[in-house]
Amino acid sequence: MSGYDDVESAFWEYERALQSNDLEVLDRLVAPGPDTLLGDDAGILVGHDAIRAFRHARDGVPRRVVEAVEIRLIPDAAALVVAITAPATGGRGQQTQLWNLIGGSWRVAATHVSQPAPAVNGSVWRTVGTPLVAASVAGVLSGETVAVKDLYDVAGFPVGAGIPAWLAEAAPATEHSPAVAALIAAGADIVGIAQTDEFAYSIAGRNPHYGTPPNPAVLGGVPGGSSSGPTSAVALGQASIGLGTDTAGSVRIPASYQGLWGLRSTHGAVSRERLIALAPTFDAVGWLTRSAATVSAAAEATLDMSRQIDAAPDYVVAPALLAHCEPDVRAAFEAFAGDAFDTVELGDIDELFLTFRTVQSAEAWRTHGPWIEAHPGALGDDVAGRFAFAATITAEQEAAGRTALSAARRTLDSVLGDRVLLVPTASSTAPSVFAGPEHTERTRQGTLRLTCIAGLTGRPALSAPLLSAPQPGALLPAPVGLGLVGPRFSDVALVNLATQLVR
Amino acid sequence: MSGYDDVESAFWEYERALQSNDLEVLDRLVAPGPDTLLGDDAGILVGHDAIRAFRHARDGVPRRVVEAVEIRLIPDAAALVVAITAPATGGRGQQTQLWNLIGGSWRVAATHVSQPAPAVNGSVWRTVGTPLVAASVAGVLSGETVAVKDLYDVAGFPVGAGIPAWLAEAAPATEHSPAVAALIAAGADIVGIAQTDEFAYSIAGRNPHYGTPPNPAVLGGVPGGSSSGPTSAVALGQASIGLGTDTAGSVRIPASYQGLWGLRSTHGAVSRERLIALAPTFDAVGWLTRSAATVSAAAEATLDMSRQIDAAPDYVVAPALLAHCEPDVRAAFEAFAGDAFDTVELGDIDELFLTFRTVQSAEAWRTHGPWIEAHPGALGDDVAGRFAFAATITAEQEAAGRTALSAARRTLDSVLGDRVLLVPTASSTAPSVFAGPEHTERTRQGTLRLTCIAGLTGRPALSAPLLSAPQPGALLPAPVGLGLVGPRFSDVALVNLATQLVR
Repeated sequence: MSGYDDVESAFWEYERALQSNDLEVLDRLVAPGPDTLLGDDAGILVGHDAIRAFRHARDGVPRRVVEAVEIRLIPDAAALVVAITAPATGGRGQQTQLWNLIGGSWRVAATHVSQPAPAVNGSVWRTVGTPLVAASVAGVLSGETVAVKDLYDVAGFPVGAGIPAWLAEAAPATEHSPAVAALIAAGADIVGIAQTDEFAYSIAGRNPHYGTPPNPAVLGGVPGGSSSGPTSAVALGQASIGLGTDTAGSVRIPASYQGLWGLRSTHGAVSRERLIALAPTFDAVGWLTRSAATVSAAAEATLDMSRQIDAAPDYVVAPALLAHCEPDVRAAFEAFAGDAFDTVELGDIDELFLTFRTVQSAEAWRTHGPWIEAHPGALGDDVAGRFAFAATITAEQEAAGRTALSAARRTLDSVLGDRVLLVPTASSTAPSVFAGPEHTERTRQGTLRLTCIAGLTGRPALSAPLLSAPQPGALLPAPVGLGLVGPRFSDVALVNLATQLVR
Repeated sequence: MSGYDDVESAFWEYERALQSNDLEVLDRLVAPGPDTLLGDDAGILVGHDAIRAFRHARDGVPRRVVEAVEIRLIPDAAALVVAITAPATGGRGQQTQLWNLIGGSWRVAATHVSQPAPAVNGSVWRTVGTPLVAASVAGVLSGETVAVKDLYDVAGFPVGAGIPAWLAEAAPATEHSPAVAALIAAGADIVGIAQTDEFAYSIAGRNPHYGTPPNPAVLGGVPGGSSSGPTSAVALGQASIGLGTDTAGSVRIPASYQGLWGLRSTHGAVSRERLIALAPTFDAVGWLTRSAATVSAAAEATLDMSRQIDAAPDYVVAPALLAHCEPDVRAAFEAFAGDAFDTVELGDIDELFLTFRTVQSAEAWRTHGPWIEAHPGALGDDVAGRFAFAATITAEQEAAGRTALSAARRTLDSVLGDRVLLVPTASSTAPSVFAGPEHTERTRQGTLRLTCIAGLTGRPALSAPLLSAPQPGALLPAPVGLGLVGPRFSDVALVNLATQLVR
């Protein structure tokens, strides 16, 4: 059982099992133990169990034929098999497999799979150019490439808002939204228009029409939303600046899930003209980048710098917020923070969140309710359900919510003052796309309690990719964003502060 | 010299050599002999010499850091090294290497490299959507995806013609070119606008502004042009139909180089409205696909089928054309054709080509000369030189050329009649991007002598991916197109005939 023919037979048995998604055969042929590797364009899974779980959750592999097989035998020990695959959809792929002779049988100890890239990843992007809009002048952002969330006007193109029925009725924009124009005026190219959760009313990044963008930092993790497309575009290296929006965390949460810098600007500091609203009291422009320097430059190019203020490294933490975090995120934050910072009491966190949610819901329904009622079936279940709840908010509830909002603002401003709140950006690392509803809802509720503080106060908030948590089944840890919520108009200062926080 | 630490040291030595493009170290660390493998998204190189030649021709690899390394030791024999790489431009890649212990030293016997995909490959595409234009109705082409050569009007988008200076002055098209509209009306989606050689005046597919699209069938081979973008898009699986143009072979040649079906339609059978011309006497619409069924369906959806005629399997070959082929292509054709077919004399092939070239040149200059003179420096050297030659054609030469063209048509029509000429599509397999000017020019001259027969007669011509030639340094042979030149309006019949020619 150790010759060339045996390896070749094992290869073909494995290939047939892949094509027929015969999980029993696959489980048997994959080498047991924690050292087995399966890598593809999404990342590398480590260990038989992680590979098995992944294969049992998915629906099999695309149809393909094997065009060539090369075998390099390492006598009585192992063999490398390299195959050229031809997917039914065209192009060519490569499989590289290390087979080990284990107890007299050939087992796959490592696999590296390459598949041909699509013209464009439609879960990330709606329209892409090379570039779509070229910078008109040179500037500090020359060479930077922007993925624009599909809520902003880009001249010449319609806005889709993550909803095909909305897109179908949209006329091409006649001019750029100011937040888009500011980046172009500073020298950046617009690469394309990137996907969003429907009407930006989700933090998961799972668009039912266009698919779920990949999260290259967490295997099988959701990208986070609602600025899912711009975030994944930047994390994948397909753009250097994501232009997003943040109502309840839609810039900060995907930044945290994917290990990027994400800055929610001070409410009202950047014009929201020619931008699809969700809840105007909370809606804010934001940016996602791989580097602190780039997020700072994007913010400086867009903000009225004469209004920006400095911020001192005068940090506080709110233990009541940490109680809403998953253990791994809490541990990562506490390992970072130790007892180095003063603590503050923000009040009843659940009450704060309910206040936020009441006003957000009322405004979201006012903004989009008429269109939704005129387009039954246009939304997926998740966002449709959220709007259905929003529709139930009465005028009395909204009025009470606005009163509570004013009070919450006064209280939070009084407690926080000019200090900077440190908080995990999200309550968890990126949940798996296969996670059950209980985990998804618990982490969502936790995260929104963390992110609503900036929304309630209109304060700028940064997610800095400075923390991490163990990622079972992967070679690298999962990113955890460190959140900084600063005084209004301290946007750029927050980035500078964060760069000094690396420990 | 056989432990984990030694493998790790060797890995890092190799990685440093890759990053510094230290060819001497790379040559030493790559296992000698013909079995060594190097695979990446472009394909798989086989043998130390092929890998060495490739590395000496290129400029090194993009800057990256290694984020994780896993080593699986096969004691005293080999080791597998798997690394996660982080390119400076974002995203993550994977390296898988098999190291063999050869004469006491570790050598790389196989490598599989994955790099993150760009948002869109700008050498292939200019603008891409998901889709860019959706089909308005269901039809026989439902599910098909079209790459439109950047010469055709696509409503809402400017035409670039492969030239940034032209694009900069272009207004968005107000309606689709008829050849585009026909595919949409039959149910196809338009994926995007794909690159072309400047003004379609080349057969190489090397655009100096946008780069050279990859040829997934020939490692390091040019894609062929001028319909380079649509062809590579289809070969890569990024579209299923390439909509091209063919003046002197611009559909058939890239089809031959990349192993696709390529059909040049009967001259005048498809409207050329809203399509940038080159030489109207010869310009023809054409399609590129991976399957015979799809090219046939695209043609049927576009052509006036009431004018189409049948064609009998009444084949002839022209030995004088074979004399212009490289030995490998000639051998592939002769192995296929044997002595099964009647031979014909087409006359002096050089004279025929000169006649074609004179009229083509005169028309090309008439079409684009004024714009070129008004935009010095807008074209790359190769196409600029071709236009500079075209500008030298005098009115007397053109008049003589047109007289000779009429005579050539009569002669060729008389010789060929209703029969179908079999001929290699191109004189060579795809030349290497690193090929010297002598090889490039010789194969170009040979190929144009083969392709001009259809141009001179206005006949439809098909390139069918039925032949191949050895490809040293690769696991698969290089494709060679079998050309079929049929009676005018036998376009669809040629595809049917070719499907019966497979031997």
